[in-house]
Amino acid sequence: MKIITDSVEISTQGNTDIIDLTQEIVEMLDKADLTQGNLTVFVSGSTAGVTSIEYEPGLIKDLPEAFERIAPTEMSYHHNATWGDGNGHSHVRAALLGSSFTVPFHNGKLLLGTWQQIVVIDFDNRPRKRSVVVQIMGE
Amino acid sequence: MKIITDSVEISTQGNTDIIDLTQEIVEMLDKADLTQGNLTVFVSGSTAGVTSIEYEPGLIKDLPEAFERIAPTEMSYHHNATWGDGNGHSHVRAALLGSSFTVPFHNGKLLLGTWQQIVVIDFDNRPRKRSVVVQIMGE
Amino acid sequence: MKIITDSVEISTQGNTDIIDLTQEIVEMLDKADLTQGNLTVFVSGSTAGVTSIEYEPGLIKDLPEAFERIAPTEMSYHHNATWGDGNGHSHVRAALLGSSFTVPFHNGKLLLGTWQQIVVIDFDNRPRKRSVVVQIMGE
Repeated sequence: MKIITDSVEISTQGNTDIIDLTQEIVEMLDKADLTQGNLTVFVSGSTAGVTSIEYEPGLIKDLPEAFERIAPTEMSYHHNATWGDGNGHSHVRAALLGSSFTVPFHNGKLLLGTWQQIVVIDFDNRPRKRSVVVQIMGE
Repeated sequence: MKIITDSVEISTQGNTDIIDLTQEIVEMLDKADLTQGNLTVFVSGSTAGVTSIEYEPGLIKDLPEAFERIAPTEMSYHHNATWGDGNGHSHVRAALLGSSFTVPFHNGKLLLGTWQQIVVIDFDNRPRKRSVVVQIMGE
Repeated sequence: MKIITDSVEISTQGNTDIIDLTQEIVEMLDKADLTQGNLTVFVSGSTAGVTSIEYEPGLIKDLPEAFERIAPTEMSYHHNATWGDGNGHSHVRAALLGSSFTVPFHNGKLLLGTWQQIVVIDFDNRPRKRSVVVQIMGE
């Protein structure tokens, strides 16, 4: 058993910006040279989340629109009343999506579907630099 | 430490069909003959998700109705404009739910509640065959 | 590689009560004296979930309000028609949030952001006692 804890540095536009990290993650797994186990992608902070989607131009618009229905930008949030930073919706969206995502791998390959990419979604209301943790555990 | 990477093949009706996989998963864990660790259920593809629910006839209707409020079937999706396959809502629902679910086990038993079943939800707009990954990691 | 499976006992008020477990979890990890790996927080039962948030008084109100929009308390649920326990909305909310949350650690520290706490949300419609599983896997 081997554990590798690494990270990917990204720059985002915020505002529900969706960043495809699949290629960087696959390269990390290739380098790890392991047969089977799992890989956890974790974004530190409380205004971003991780999930998988088919990364294509249509969904990149559909998903922010869905979050706009669930936690609208232009609404009154208690968080904003406290802090005045205007990102109450970002916090709510991130809490609902979750900041952790675990994918098994086998025969050295992530068991993702062909049209399934691992994405970080930055819900904050301004551009951010993020350090995304990638941890591989396997043999 | 031992890792077992296996899969369960299922046929779904699509349209937010909810499939209870608990029994198959418990049998896999029994066969693994391990004491403690965790088990990850992962569905490949971007139109299905995994979670746990009390699997009973009422919730089997309530949950699709909730997803219908969050990402309605009859709405305009950019994904559909691109691909014409009419399953934009399926992609959005799957991205929100997430395709991975990890449950710890101890003394050889999954630490699920008595009325807590592990389910795959197939959001696609047609019947599908799915290969669901079950990975056990423990000692 | 070492696995530690433990639990934290909590009392909740139900009704989307949000409980910050970060301190207890950090103490467990410190006691485990491991360098790197991951920690899974899992709540047994189908009316509670786990996620991470900035635990501050504003969000503690915003998040329940968001769940009220997604799965309103005062609505007709098939679950309630079957069981008459009035917590259909609790089940739906828990299924959407998910009952499992995995955080990597490195150099003996959880890789959480400074304003990112691990919380259990109890959606049930009455006070509950909950046993929350904390499993540490690492080296």
